Amino acid sequence: MEPQLNQEVIKTAAEHDGPIETDAVIVGAGPVGLFQVFELGLLEIKAHVIDSLAYPGGQCVELYPDKPIYDIPAVPVCTGQELTDNLLKQIEPFGATFHFGQEVSKVERQEDGRFYVETSKGTRFLTKTIFIAAGVGAFQPKQLKVEGLAQYEGTQFHYRVKNPADFAGKNLVVVGGGDSALDWALNFCAGNADGNPHKAESVILIHRRDGFRAAPASVAKMREMCDALEMQFIVGQITGIEEKDGKLAGAKVTGGDGVTRVVPMDALLVFFGLSPKLGPIADWGLDIERKQLKVDTEKFATNVPGIFAVGDINTYPGKKKLILSGFHECALAAFGAAPFIFPDKKIHLQYTTTSPKLHKVLGVETPVFD
Amino acid sequence: MEPQLNQEVIKTAAEHDGPIETDAVIVGAGPVGLFQVFELGLLEIKAHVIDSLAYPGGQCVELYPDKPIYDIPAVPVCTGQELTDNLLKQIEPFGATFHFGQEVSKVERQEDGRFYVETSKGTRFLTKTIFIAAGVGAFQPKQLKVEGLAQYEGTQFHYRVKNPADFAGKNLVVVGGGDSALDWALNFCAGNADGNPHKAESVILIHRRDGFRAAPASVAKMREMCDALEMQFIVGQITGIEEKDGKLAGAKVTGGDGVTRVVPMDALLVFFGLSPKLGPIADWGLDIERKQLKVDTEKFATNVPGIFAVGDINTYPGKKKLILSGFHECALAAFGAAPFIFPDKKIHLQYTTTSPKLHKVLGVETPVFD
Repeated sequence: MEPQLNQEVIKTAAEHDGPIETDAVIVGAGPVGLFQVFELGLLEIKAHVIDSLAYPGGQCVELYPDKPIYDIPAVPVCTGQELTDNLLKQIEPFGATFHFGQEVSKVERQEDGRFYVETSKGTRFLTKTIFIAAGVGAFQPKQLKVEGLAQYEGTQFHYRVKNPADFAGKNLVVVGGGDSALDWALNFCAGNADGNPHKAESVILIHRRDGFRAAPASVAKMREMCDALEMQFIVGQITGIEEKDGKLAGAKVTGGDGVTRVVPMDALLVFFGLSPKLGPIADWGLDIERKQLKVDTEKFATNVPGIFAVGDINTYPGKKKLILSGFHECALAAFGAAPFIFPDKKIHLQYTTTSPKLHKVLGVETPVFD
Repeated sequence: MEPQLNQEVIKTAAEHDGPIETDAVIVGAGPVGLFQVFELGLLEIKAHVIDSLAYPGGQCVELYPDKPIYDIPAVPVCTGQELTDNLLKQIEPFGATFHFGQEVSKVERQEDGRFYVETSKGTRFLTKTIFIAAGVGAFQPKQLKVEGLAQYEGTQFHYRVKNPADFAGKNLVVVGGGDSALDWALNFCAGNADGNPHKAESVILIHRRDGFRAAPASVAKMREMCDALEMQFIVGQITGIEEKDGKLAGAKVTGGDGVTRVVPMDALLVFFGLSPKLGPIADWGLDIERKQLKVDTEKFATNVPGIFAVGDINTYPGKKKLILSGFHECALAAFGAAPFIFPDKKIHLQYTTTSPKLHKVLGVETPVFD
C-alpha cells in the first residue's frame, strides 16, 4: 500500500461569524487524533480537529518524522510521516475540518449541555463532545531563559517569524542549530541578495557548538556565507542582555573559551525546537493524575460527561503509551460518545468487511459474493 | 509496503520425545494470535502457536481472504490474506514455532506452576503462560445431520480425506458446492485416469443447487466430466441413509422436485465448509460469559493466573470485537505475562523508534541521530 496524501482532506476552516456547531471536537492531530476521526466517521459523526502545530502528525512528525516505527500492527516498518500520511488517506472519506496552529484556550459547558470551545486564534465551536488526543501536550517553542529578556518577547525577541518584512534592514541575531535556525539565518542573510525583500543589515548565527542538526546542505550554505563574510557564526550561548533606552541593544554571548562578549543587535530570533506542554487542558476541571487524564476503560471517558481522552494523554490501570493502544481507545470512545450525539439511536457494531452501510459511509462498493 | 510472506517464519515443530518446554503457548494463529507473538517478542518471550486450521490467518483467511478490510489503523484497505501476510512479515524476527491442524485438547496445571498442554495431534508442551487468541473458536467442519449417519463417521462417512488411497476403487458420494467438494470429486473421478492411484469406481457429486462457490475452472471441469459420463451430478440434499448388514449402503437424496431417490455407495464425503466451535476451552476452568472468556482490562488476564485471553474470544465492559482492539490487548497481556516468565526482572516500556535494545531484538540497525 503506497501512502497517498490527499491534501484536500486538510481543510482549513473559513472565517465564521458565529461559533461552528459540530458533534465532535478533537484536540490533537497526531496519529490517535486522526484515527479518532475514522472511528467517529464510521458512526457518522463529523469532527473538527484542532492542533497547535501547523500540520498533522503530532509528535510522530514533530519529533521523529524519518525514524522507523516497528510496532504498528500489520505495518512491519514505517516512519512517523508515512504513518500520518496513511492515516490521512484512511480518514479521507469523512471530511474532517482541521484547525492548525492554534490551541484550545477555553472550554465551557453551556446550558444546553454542549461545550463552548475557543482557540488561541479565536476559532469558536459549540460541540456535543470533545476528544482530547493531545499526546504529550501542545507543542510550544523551547524557551531561552535569560534575565530581563522575556519583556521583549513579541517586539525585539521572537520564537517564530510571523512577518519576515519586520526584520528587513535590521541587525539580527539568530540562535539555534536546527533547520529553523539555519533556514531563517540564510533567508535574512545579506548575501542572499538578489531582490530579497527581507534582506537584513547583518545576520549573526549563534549555536552552542560547531555542529548542527540542520540539513547538511543548509550547513554547507551557511559556511559558504560565513566565508564570504555575508554572515557570522559564533559558537556560544546567550547568558545575558544589554539594554539601552528601554530597548534590547545586545546579547551577552559566552563562548566555549569561557569569555563573554557583547553582540549588538536590533532583534533576536531563537529556534530551540518545540517541546510539549499540557497547557490549558489542566484547567478544564478534569481528573488529572501525574499530568495524565484519568479515564475508564469502557468508554475512555474523563470525569466530565461528554469529554473523552485517548492516546498518550490518558491514564488507567495497565496503560502503556503505545500508538496501537490509542487506536483501540478511539474505537471505544467513539461508541461511548454516540449516545451524546444520537440520544435516541441504538448503535450496533458493524464490520467494514461486510456492512453495506459502512461501505456507503466509506464511499466504497459492497462486493457481491455467493 | 508490499506484503511479503516469508515462508521460513512458519516452522512446523519437529517430533519431540518429551513435552516442548516454552515460555508461552498461543492458542490461535489469527491476526491477534500473530500479533501476540510480536508483543511477546519485544519482551524477549518466545512463543509456540497452535491452530486448528492448516495455515495462519484464522477467520480472516478462512471466512474472507479476499474481502477488503478498511479499519486496520494506518492501513486504508487490505484483504484478510494481506493482513495475515503483513503480520507474518512483522513477527519474522521472533522465530515463533507454529503447530497447525490441531486443537488444544488438554490443559493441566503442574506442581511447578507451569501448564501441561496437549493437542489433538499429540503435541505436548510445558509452558509458563497461555494466550488464548482463539477468536470465534476452533474451526470445525460444518456437520451433515441425518439420522443414523453419525455412527459411520471415520469409517464410511468423512468430513476430511486423510488418506486418498482409502477411497480407491470405491463408489463415492461427494457432497458440497465449494472448492473442497469439487477438488476431491475431480481427484477421485474415474475419468481422471492416467495412472491415478486413487481412482474411485464411481463418483457422484451432490449439491443443493446447480450453482457453486468453487472456482469456475473446477466447475467447468466437473461439467466436462459429467458430459463424458465419468462423473454424475445430482441437485438435491441427503435426507436419510440406507443400511445393509451393519454398513452404510446408500444415501436418500431429495431433489428439487421433492422426490427422494436412493443413491447406493460405499463411502460418503461431506464438504460443507468450516464453522467455529469454542470446543475444549470451555472445560479449562475459565470464567465464561456468553461463550466469551472474562478478562480484566489491565492485563487481559483470565481468572486463572498465567492464562490470558485476547481478541474476539474475550469479554470485558465496553468490549468490541475489532481486530484493532485485539492488538491493544496483546500488548497489555504481554506486559501482564512478563512477571510469570521473568519473576525477578523489572519490565520497562521501550519504544521501537528509539530503543537500541528493541532494535537488537527486531534485528534492525539503530540509526544515529544528533
